[in-house]
Amino acid sequence: MNPDPGPASASLPRVVIVGGGFGGLNAARALAGADVSVTLLDRHNYHLFQPLLYQVATASLSPADVASPIRWILRHQKNVEVLLADVAGIDPAARRVVLAAGASIRYDYLVLASGAAHAYFGHPEWEPRAPGLKTLDDALEMRRRVLVAFETAERETDAAAQRRLLTFVIVGAGPTGVELAGALAEIARQSLREDFRRIQPQSARILLLEGGPHVLAPFAEPLRVAARRSLERLGVEVRTGAIVTQVDDDGVAIGTERISAATVLWAAGVAASPIAKSLGVPLDRAGRVAPEPTLALAAYPEIFVVGDLCAFVENGMALPGVAQVAMQQGTRAGSNIRRAAAGQPLEPFHYKDYGIMATIGRGAAVGDVFGLKISGFFAWLFWIFLHIFWLIGFRNRIVVMTEWGWAYFTHQRRARLITGGVTASPGP
Amino acid sequence: MNPDPGPASASLPRVVIVGGGFGGLNAARALAGADVSVTLLDRHNYHLFQPLLYQVATASLSPADVASPIRWILRHQKNVEVLLADVAGIDPAARRVVLAAGASIRYDYLVLASGAAHAYFGHPEWEPRAPGLKTLDDALEMRRRVLVAFETAERETDAAAQRRLLTFVIVGAGPTGVELAGALAEIARQSLREDFRRIQPQSARILLLEGGPHVLAPFAEPLRVAARRSLERLGVEVRTGAIVTQVDDDGVAIGTERISAATVLWAAGVAASPIAKSLGVPLDRAGRVAPEPTLALAAYPEIFVVGDLCAFVENGMALPGVAQVAMQQGTRAGSNIRRAAAGQPLEPFHYKDYGIMATIGRGAAVGDVFGLKISGFFAWLFWIFLHIFWLIGFRNRIVVMTEWGWAYFTHQRRARLITGGVTASPGP
Repeated sequence: MNPDPGPASASLPRVVIVGGGFGGLNAARALAGADVSVTLLDRHNYHLFQPLLYQVATASLSPADVASPIRWILRHQKNVEVLLADVAGIDPAARRVVLAAGASIRYDYLVLASGAAHAYFGHPEWEPRAPGLKTLDDALEMRRRVLVAFETAERETDAAAQRRLLTFVIVGAGPTGVELAGALAEIARQSLREDFRRIQPQSARILLLEGGPHVLAPFAEPLRVAARRSLERLGVEVRTGAIVTQVDDDGVAIGTERISAATVLWAAGVAASPIAKSLGVPLDRAGRVAPEPTLALAAYPEIFVVGDLCAFVENGMALPGVAQVAMQQGTRAGSNIRRAAAGQPLEPFHYKDYGIMATIGRGAAVGDVFGLKISGFFAWLFWIFLHIFWLIGFRNRIVVMTEWGWAYFTHQRRARLITGGVTASPGP
Repeated sequence: MNPDPGPASASLPRVVIVGGGFGGLNAARALAGADVSVTLLDRHNYHLFQPLLYQVATASLSPADVASPIRWILRHQKNVEVLLADVAGIDPAARRVVLAAGASIRYDYLVLASGAAHAYFGHPEWEPRAPGLKTLDDALEMRRRVLVAFETAERETDAAAQRRLLTFVIVGAGPTGVELAGALAEIARQSLREDFRRIQPQSARILLLEGGPHVLAPFAEPLRVAARRSLERLGVEVRTGAIVTQVDDDGVAIGTERISAATVLWAAGVAASPIAKSLGVPLDRAGRVAPEPTLALAAYPEIFVVGDLCAFVENGMALPGVAQVAMQQGTRAGSNIRRAAAGQPLEPFHYKDYGIMATIGRGAAVGDVFGLKISGFFAWLFWIFLHIFWLIGFRNRIVVMTEWGWAYFTHQRRARLITGGVTASPGP
């Protein structure tokens, strides 16, 4: 690759967007028709509908149902080009994005939307043993481990070893952890019920460990209680105040208590993308950047930060790392760049909170939407409606609706395929 | 894992089936309700509908559309257990199947249905550079390489390097090679048309190289001509009598002629699964075993061979390595084991040839079915009907029909996702 692929149009202000998630994509869209030349960089060729990624990990949906090629989404927006590239860092003094391949790309405006990865409480060595859920490859790896654990248990005759293979630990009881635990319980109790001859999949033990005092901490108290009850009804052992102190080949430790588990899934801490470090500005404890109310940085007014990388406090409350925040910030960053390029003053970002939701297995959800607290079957239908509505691409909507309808009536999961590393060992 | 997981029921004759492809699956089904205990072993947890695998490689279908978990397919057949296991070889004297993990499984009857892999004309070192198409992982790897080649070309500014990235070579013009070439041409000319800003995907060069004198050698002459014409209409350069003498980092060589190509896909020679060697019986040039007319081995009458591993000559013609042959042989092997267990004489296998078909991109196919030679749009519709009909699982049928209908009218390919190894280099 040459040092600088150069802008699509050299005469216009050049906007570089790092990351094609909810934040970056909406920033690009907000610049449609503007007199700027936009370059969107991402490590993956797809935009991922992250809220449904756990359904890929639990074999309900296929990767293509929750992801679309970024360049396909933006194909009609002629002032945008999309490049598949790994960003190593930013050189804010030179106004260049440095690529891992060594090249760099000049910008007039930068939108940093590179998101977050999992944090292992200072124990990066736990990662191979307890994978997190951020990319399609992560989801396929989780799916592989879960399915291989059942397969290996079927061949195993030692009772203790079999017990360990049928023990699944999920660390972290935020929305991702809760949704994973619910879906895993349903796989074990329903989808696999008839498939094995030597093991009883429904005897699998599923533990949801949370260091804090609550399941679904950001939700209101009655919803937390409803969520916990729904999980327990599905047979999930919910343990709050359970701080994981060790993850190793045998399983996990909570202080002096050991839990033998072949499969450990990580849904706990979050750390902002390491690209933020290269800006040389102060970061918060999670590695995030706090911008001005306009989302621009005080030190570099041509740099905007959005989404999980952005530490934004409104009315004394830090905004959560959810899709809605990233989308709205992306849109605001895009419109502010449009204003800046036209010499107009920037506008501050305000978050419109439409609410939060989480599903717990089939037919149950909790939500706090438009000021209403809802739970149960109705909440679940509403969750389905919302997620189909937000999913990108008419085709994906049809396919996902078909899959869900089918799964609801048959309890089956069509995507129960082990790919990527074939046989035997469920662990790393 | 313990030395021998032991049969599900110790008192009944034990049938072990190695391989869950068309042959093995049909052998298991033919034993439904029989007084035997069946153990089916496979390296993968899924049965693959191989004739559509090239559509996963070319981003039209998702893995879950063409594969189903073997234990799900056989869940209602109570005398079958399915084990995920890598078979190292057979010990025919001891009547045991030896697993790669070291354990072994005793059998009274064995069905060897472990299929075939690609052969590289004595050049195994070409494999990483020119992957073949046998498993889901193979298909995802092909898809990754093809998509990454276009992505890398978009970033490349050196004209020769860009040319190389946009050159795709397919080696072997049997059904798989022809179908791959047709689908690749459509990706370049149609699906990606609007997505790039710097390259013109429709300028991609797609070469189909065949060592022999014909495209689709097993088909009748008029159909070969029709297939070649359809490919050329799609812009594929078809070269017959082109024997590949070298595959390296730059591309391929045909004698002294060099073709620079970033992507080389292998659809040529086939070699039977190496498990056949461990039998200690004579093998043919492709490593296959020639059984008695009953599909049992002369030396070991309790061992049956079916599918791509089986060299079967009927009326002076060697049967081709296609799904129909494997399915019918599997059924015959199962019914003969049933007869043997009941003390009845075995019956010889006879192949019912319903014909062969191949598609060339969207809206064209050639076929020789029920004695009729068909080509063009009608043949394509018939091809669709047949493949939907043979696909396992009502759900897969619905989803695949939806995908195809959508793709027909929009020219889009929904599964254009790069997974497994993220950025940059298309090759190994």
